[in-house]
Amino acid sequence: MTVPKNRLALGTSRRRSGESAHGALSTRLRSAILSGTLPPNARLPSARALGLELSLARGTIVGVYERLESEGYLVARGAAGTFVSACLPAGTTPAPSPPKSQGARRASSKLDAAPVARSFQVGVPAVESFPSHIWSRLLARHSRRATARDLARADPCGDPALRGAIAAYLAVSRGVVARPEQVIVTAGYQGALGLLCAAFPGPQHRAWVEEPGYQFTRHALTLAGLRVQPIPVDDEGIAFAGRCSNGPSPDLVFVTASHQMPLGMPLSLARRLSLLAFARARAALIVEDDYDGEFHYASRPLPALASLEPDGPVIYAGTFSKVMFPGLRLGYLVVPEGVRERLERVATLLTPASGFAAQAATADFLGEGHLARHVRRMRRLYAERREALLSALAERASDELLVTPRGGGLLVLARFAPDRQRSDQDVVRRAKALRLSPTPLSVCFSHVPRRGGSGLLLGFAGLHPSRARAEVDRLVSAIVASPLV
Amino acid sequence: MTVPKNRLALGTSRRRSGESAHGALSTRLRSAILSGTLPPNARLPSARALGLELSLARGTIVGVYERLESEGYLVARGAAGTFVSACLPAGTTPAPSPPKSQGARRASSKLDAAPVARSFQVGVPAVESFPSHIWSRLLARHSRRATARDLARADPCGDPALRGAIAAYLAVSRGVVARPEQVIVTAGYQGALGLLCAAFPGPQHRAWVEEPGYQFTRHALTLAGLRVQPIPVDDEGIAFAGRCSNGPSPDLVFVTASHQMPLGMPLSLARRLSLLAFARARAALIVEDDYDGEFHYASRPLPALASLEPDGPVIYAGTFSKVMFPGLRLGYLVVPEGVRERLERVATLLTPASGFAAQAATADFLGEGHLARHVRRMRRLYAERREALLSALAERASDELLVTPRGGGLLVLARFAPDRQRSDQDVVRRAKALRLSPTPLSVCFSHVPRRGGSGLLLGFAGLHPSRARAEVDRLVSAIVASPLV
Repeated sequence: MTVPKNRLALGTSRRRSGESAHGALSTRLRSAILSGTLPPNARLPSARALGLELSLARGTIVGVYERLESEGYLVARGAAGTFVSACLPAGTTPAPSPPKSQGARRASSKLDAAPVARSFQVGVPAVESFPSHIWSRLLARHSRRATARDLARADPCGDPALRGAIAAYLAVSRGVVARPEQVIVTAGYQGALGLLCAAFPGPQHRAWVEEPGYQFTRHALTLAGLRVQPIPVDDEGIAFAGRCSNGPSPDLVFVTASHQMPLGMPLSLARRLSLLAFARARAALIVEDDYDGEFHYASRPLPALASLEPDGPVIYAGTFSKVMFPGLRLGYLVVPEGVRERLERVATLLTPASGFAAQAATADFLGEGHLARHVRRMRRLYAERREALLSALAERASDELLVTPRGGGLLVLARFAPDRQRSDQDVVRRAKALRLSPTPLSVCFSHVPRRGGSGLLLGFAGLHPSRARAEVDRLVSAIVASPLV
Repeated sequence: MTVPKNRLALGTSRRRSGESAHGALSTRLRSAILSGTLPPNARLPSARALGLELSLARGTIVGVYERLESEGYLVARGAAGTFVSACLPAGTTPAPSPPKSQGARRASSKLDAAPVARSFQVGVPAVESFPSHIWSRLLARHSRRATARDLARADPCGDPALRGAIAAYLAVSRGVVARPEQVIVTAGYQGALGLLCAAFPGPQHRAWVEEPGYQFTRHALTLAGLRVQPIPVDDEGIAFAGRCSNGPSPDLVFVTASHQMPLGMPLSLARRLSLLAFARARAALIVEDDYDGEFHYASRPLPALASLEPDGPVIYAGTFSKVMFPGLRLGYLVVPEGVRERLERVATLLTPASGFAAQAATADFLGEGHLARHVRRMRRLYAERREALLSALAERASDELLVTPRGGGLLVLARFAPDRQRSDQDVVRRAKALRLSPTPLSVCFSHVPRRGGSGLLLGFAGLHPSRARAEVDRLVSAIVASPLV
């Protein structure tokens, strides 16, 4: 459907003085979209036509469209025009709206009932900004063109086209040079863990994990029965030096080198080099969980650890959950030649890659440059959201929370002020009652320390800048309701 | 594109006497499709129009279309008409054809270069008869309609709609009554094995497998480090009675109850009941690998073992590889309540289900009745192909091979005649040189017995009835070239 121009009328009589035409039109459009007056997929008038209608410069309309596009309300589809996004931003509150038609009510109540992510949730990217129309076109293309060969088999290590596209993407974006055969496609990062645990089964294998670290890795390895040893992290990353001379060698060392999860700093270059030397000396494998290495705001992202040494002792684990969307459930390992056959055999017999259609569509998404464009756009969007969250925290929460901003990632770590220590688990329980979802820092520890173990991980990927202050205010209300300890 | 009626002209002057109009038109159409004269997706004239044109009864044309549809050359799309299949039958030899246009040559050389399955290959269904147009419509529907919620997460145990659809399907088709929460979606049967191996890791867990049995199961469990014990199979199925009184209890007992793989007979009712009692007494779990329980020709399929006892000690493993297509890589486990949480936790942390789109499309494929219709059609098609193979074997290979036909499945087991014993591995090597792919029976044994361990598994799912005799002749030439032992 195409939206009639008169439904976008600014109602100039109601325009408050001092509010710019740009701001007024933006507000009106957002409200019309949230209320369902402009339903998903509706096409907007061209900037020229709407400018003539509203007596505004075409440039003003273009600016408004671009802004709402960056916010996820609108989607530009080239020559086809500009459309209301099929997926509204997560957690938006519908504006008060006049009585709707049945159709509009159904559409909007479906969205109301299904908030995608609560504020501060970690691990869910801004899916409403994902170019679903491109994705759905690629997927439809591959389901239509499926040959009998496509139907008859799926390579358990992944679609060859996707493995090639990943190798090409990594060389450019992360400096990792690998042949397509070294890429094994998995069911996201979890599937990669399953593959590694099947190849290095417990209890005869030993894994080192960062302390604090990504709780999911620790839980999965423990469930699989590996001997899991937490290794403390300092300002330069995993501090394993003390473990070198004594004790049994690890088989796998899991590190988050780009942005340590949850502390945020990168693994220093010196530490990277000594970790590589250690792994070679002990015949251990480093597993580099590069969960959001693409997102770096202050400077260029650091190259991956796996890029430092050709065919070094590093298994690189990547995922499309953050850079595309989690529901895709696709990830990959880039494996050194020495363990390739072993891992291929495990993939074939126990942890095969998923069906061909989504893989083939993902290969095109990479190969046609959509992923690189999307990551560039998201880097700008996340930089804005991070900035808005940091400002709001500084402005509204500085009595309670101390934040040391890091250069990358999709979350901010906030610690409680020294004289205002609280149980992070208790704060999070209270926040959840307000429909906020911060993550307690303490879950990242296997043994929570007395000092420095309490804090909040605040995801900002889904946090709209215009709501940052209000959401921080609500978070502060949950914090101050929690007793001091 | 629509095919002009004159391109289907029968060339009556060249029609050999004695050949029926039905036969002549069928032959002409097959040859036109194989040569690329009728390209994939071309729409055929209506039966009425073509009948008028060729001065044949409409009923004759309808009969020819139906026959070619059942053979996989044509696809009926309801009111839209009849179309050339987008995926030509596997392993077809293009008929001699006049010089083609560039486009047609490209299309056909692509198919020539990609034979889907060689004759006698086990495990690949007749994918050319799969209704790809329905599948691609369903997949496109779900990729277009993806909500932000769909993008943001995928349930690691499987899409709720698919779990519900599987539960409903199993109740009708296999007598298995389960709640949707008991269904866990996996990456095919291999993924189900990966999930079970992660939940019952080696070496502290023990698995019994059938001897002979499905080699894939044995290899996967061995790779995962479980203690694997082969249990002999007799005419009634797994003969575990001798193991009851002594020796350690198994944790998992893998059985192919519908059609024993590779011998073909069902697990007898008496044996089913005693196996259930044994499992209860020893706190073991039976894993019922129902790999092709849908395909039974002589009578109604036996209900699944899992249907005998509500919430009994049975994990039911099903797959869509045979009833839909292997490239989908979707399977499932139906799990008893007692182990549900344990398996859910493993699925979440180590072996999550794949992305949502293919799962949602599969849910609709089941829910809208397409799967039941497709299985009914395939049962007829496979019955014909099995009959053709059995006739050809009786007619052309009875000196060399002994066949005891069983009531179901997608393969025939042929043993060498008593005085004509050969190495099945050697025969298979020679057959592969002729581009035939039988499977040697001996791979199904962990210890190949001196007598009865050699034979050939002949898959018939992709074997066109018209080629059965010729392919059996070629197989016999590979057999007689192999030395007697």
